[in-house]
Amino acid sequence: MKTEKEKMLAGEMYNPADSVLLKEREEARRKVRIYNQTLETEGEKRTKLLKELLGSTGENVYMEPNIRFDYGYNTHVGENFFANFDCTILDVCEVRFGDNCMLAPGVQIYTAAHPLHPAERNSGKEFARPISFGNNVWIGGNAVINPGVTVGDNVVIASGAVVTKDVPDNVVVGGNPAKVIKQIEI
Amino acid sequence: MKTEKEKMLAGEMYNPADSVLLKEREEARRKVRIYNQTLETEGEKRTKLLKELLGSTGENVYMEPNIRFDYGYNTHVGENFFANFDCTILDVCEVRFGDNCMLAPGVQIYTAAHPLHPAERNSGKEFARPISFGNNVWIGGNAVINPGVTVGDNVVIASGAVVTKDVPDNVVVGGNPAKVIKQIEI
Amino acid sequence: MKTEKEKMLAGEMYNPADSVLLKEREEARRKVRIYNQTLETEGEKRTKLLKELLGSTGENVYMEPNIRFDYGYNTHVGENFFANFDCTILDVCEVRFGDNCMLAPGVQIYTAAHPLHPAERNSGKEFARPISFGNNVWIGGNAVINPGVTVGDNVVIASGAVVTKDVPDNVVVGGNPAKVIKQIEI
Repeated sequence: MKTEKEKMLAGEMYNPADSVLLKEREEARRKVRIYNQTLETEGEKRTKLLKELLGSTGENVYMEPNIRFDYGYNTHVGENFFANFDCTILDVCEVRFGDNCMLAPGVQIYTAAHPLHPAERNSGKEFARPISFGNNVWIGGNAVINPGVTVGDNVVIASGAVVTKDVPDNVVVGGNPAKVIKQIEI
Repeated sequence: MKTEKEKMLAGEMYNPADSVLLKEREEARRKVRIYNQTLETEGEKRTKLLKELLGSTGENVYMEPNIRFDYGYNTHVGENFFANFDCTILDVCEVRFGDNCMLAPGVQIYTAAHPLHPAERNSGKEFARPISFGNNVWIGGNAVINPGVTVGDNVVIASGAVVTKDVPDNVVVGGNPAKVIKQIEI
Repeated sequence: MKTEKEKMLAGEMYNPADSVLLKEREEARRKVRIYNQTLETEGEKRTKLLKELLGSTGENVYMEPNIRFDYGYNTHVGENFFANFDCTILDVCEVRFGDNCMLAPGVQIYTAAHPLHPAERNSGKEFARPISFGNNVWIGGNAVINPGVTVGDNVVIASGAVVTKDVPDNVVVGGNPAKVIKQIEI
């Protein structure tokens, strides 16, 4: 028998009201709140708190408050990770960034999903899909990344883009839904 | 003679600098600030404060901070209302949700509007249009709902959608402006 | 030899890790934090703090917390400037508003940009482009304004619009990317 957490991480339907998961989300919200209360002069403290919150990080990691996470430990970032103001990562299952990724303000990354059929959705059960980004990805402001999306290396996601499908290497995508608008010569 | 508040609620041009309305918005901001300062361990307090802030609610109501409202009392939510982080509801006139509605992070619901002509807009007078949602509506992250929109039952609004027109029952809408992208078989 | 700040303001590639610029951003974040901690009853204090933060303002200026700025002093607003909740202005170079401009909640104004090529972007150097708005501009909620955009007089930017190009006088623009959707008869 799988636990609810095991089902969640495997992308299966699970019950988010499970007591273990409730405790873990409360703990993540506590850490996130403490992070968001740090001062602009406390850069080292912010880095330390992020390293405690996230699943894994490189040496150089920074996010401007306010940050939002569901669990934190499901988010893995590479070297030189930077996120500007007010980014939200619903990391119900794994969110993985390569090296040298930067997020502009207000970026929204959602692994969390619900059934489309109302009776199933109202059961309270839900599911999630992992999201990954390659190396050297720049996500523009207010962009949304949907559950299950895989983004390649050297990608630029335009501000305001809504990314609903996988993105290959070396392109700029933009629009709603996002489409390739430019190749990047590497 | 109608008061400015009566005109506001009736969808007529009104003066938002009216002293009664200024006091009511200040009071709503006070309640919202107190809500946004609650801790992740204070779920019961949050529910209590929401029931005091909103016009009417079911038993089971929850919103993740930070919330934003103009008046609060113009927002009515049914049973099992859930809103994730950082949702904004400009409830200058009525916003009504049926039962089992859930909002993802960053959802923006705007009843407030201004005249398009600059001289009229600069007069400081403005107007609003009510917004309603049926039962079993799931609004995706960062979606925007414009003044006057009526959304049916069993609707899913995709993340990043900008909803400018009424939405019938049993559909998924997405895009900017939002269009029907799927029927949901009930 | 230009300083990094001079290069930044001139729209040239510059190093944001420059010690002068780091200090100035820290000071802006301090002012912004103090502003965001003011109470709903402290309207006069908010106006005073905004006049100290921004490059220049008219008499009548107001923004609902939470505000976000990179430097503050690069933002110039005319008479009767109003911004609703949670607007973000990355004013790495000049952002200029005429008179009677109003921003709905969650508006995102970005002068900051990065090279598209990953090796150049990973150098840490970046650049910015100024943004300007004429008189009587209303920006709808959650709209994004990209680097280098010039917006005319009497313009309405629809909620959720992503503005990537210049906007002429007397029009409504909307969509992603934003296009002219209506002329306004003046």
